[in-house]
Amino acid sequence: MTMAIDDMLRTYPADLGQVDRDRLRRCIEECAACAQACTACADSCLSEDRVTDLAKCVRTDLDCADICEATARVLSRHTGYDANVTRAQLMACATVCAACAEECERHASTHEHCRVCAESCRRCERACRELLDALG
Amino acid sequence: MTMAIDDMLRTYPADLGQVDRDRLRRCIEECAACAQACTACADSCLSEDRVTDLAKCVRTDLDCADICEATARVLSRHTGYDANVTRAQLMACATVCAACAEECERHASTHEHCRVCAESCRRCERACRELLDALG
Amino acid sequence: MTMAIDDMLRTYPADLGQVDRDRLRRCIEECAACAQACTACADSCLSEDRVTDLAKCVRTDLDCADICEATARVLSRHTGYDANVTRAQLMACATVCAACAEECERHASTHEHCRVCAESCRRCERACRELLDALG
Amino acid sequence: MTMAIDDMLRTYPADLGQVDRDRLRRCIEECAACAQACTACADSCLSEDRVTDLAKCVRTDLDCADICEATARVLSRHTGYDANVTRAQLMACATVCAACAEECERHASTHEHCRVCAESCRRCERACRELLDALG
Repeated sequence: MTMAIDDMLRTYPADLGQVDRDRLRRCIEECAACAQACTACADSCLSEDRVTDLAKCVRTDLDCADICEATARVLSRHTGYDANVTRAQLMACATVCAACAEECERHASTHEHCRVCAESCRRCERACRELLDALG
Repeated sequence: MTMAIDDMLRTYPADLGQVDRDRLRRCIEECAACAQACTACADSCLSEDRVTDLAKCVRTDLDCADICEATARVLSRHTGYDANVTRAQLMACATVCAACAEECERHASTHEHCRVCAESCRRCERACRELLDALG
Repeated sequence: MTMAIDDMLRTYPADLGQVDRDRLRRCIEECAACAQACTACADSCLSEDRVTDLAKCVRTDLDCADICEATARVLSRHTGYDANVTRAQLMACATVCAACAEECERHASTHEHCRVCAESCRRCERACRELLDALG
Repeated sequence: MTMAIDDMLRTYPADLGQVDRDRLRRCIEECAACAQACTACADSCLSEDRVTDLAKCVRTDLDCADICEATARVLSRHTGYDANVTRAQLMACATVCAACAEECERHASTHEHCRVCAESCRRCERACRELLDALG
């Protein structure tokens, strides 16, 4: 495991507040993993013979990668925490992960990269929702 | 004016749907402008004598830049449009723009970069809300 | 003109150094514009009938958008300036802009979005090279 | 381990070329990890009592996060591969990782987050250089 999320949370010099640290760490991790899977899945789609059938898949992958990365960054910051911003971004992230998972699942039986990507999206969607629940 | 948003909308090869093209263009433009202003404002804060008083401002600037850029990208795509994703991301963007404007306005009388940045955030917040209204 | 690049440069609270402010402003502006055009061009390619012929174009557009945005951010920061980092990122940006322009130019006669995008890439490439020249 | 980099490489539908897959995977992984560590380190710096002494550290962290993320994305794409673009971006990434490691190392004895972040930057710098060597 290369990501130093735990170390960075542990060495944060101020009070992290009442956040559920496990859910926070998992959500950052899943956002980073999902962004990578979506970027790679969009690229794999471009190398398939029938790209036309995958146009919507590429698009949703790209949205999902962008929103997951922005979310991972927002969640990696604790100074001057604003619950409204975190919540709104987590909701956008759960929404795009669900949409991308659904689209990738439609191609999962024919394209293995879509299957792997869909799983990553579902894990990230769940991590976002669990963190949202913990934030109240 | 360098941004080719209008040209890119005009040359999109498929149907753009019923979107209000003026509001869409303005929202993409304001997201890009706000991301730049927030990135620069965070950096200006770091060069002020009393950075400690501006820690929350830097943080909100960084969140705002990240979310605005992701939103500009989502709005620049029309293929396989998903209204739920667009709406959720626009709401997150309006939320962070309002938060960043509010924080920057607190320092606007002492730091001119905060004043300029706050204006950019308010314009972007308004553009997001107007596009949200148009999406229904 | 919405971008407040000039205002943000003018209100920077410390010394900007010997940088050529006009070239810096233009380069930030062209990076932001090119990132938007490339994001939109990739999406337009996905809505063309023969996406397969445009797979490399989509890929280069996506690389170009990512690298241009990172470059615009680096150039928007002046605190703790490191000439080596700025130079290396500007060289990467000029390289990808040239590659993307070349690829888009191959499709410019059939796809107008590629023509517009190629022009944006060429302007950004030139702005990067002119800023590199000024940095020495 | 959450990142599905290996799975995404394995399921890529076309020829990956002669790339050293281990070095590629490690480099993507280290870029993603370094981006997260730098984002979190910049935020931790903002919560330290003497932020002024850390202004350059925050700035370099932010540059490093932006450039690492762009690099991870470029490396996650294989369709229409352009060695010049990959090489230039890897060089920019190695440059900023070295600069950020150096700056963080100056504060490593007083701020543990800088120590953790410096290690992440050094690992990423090495991964970039090893991949550059393999690309020839």
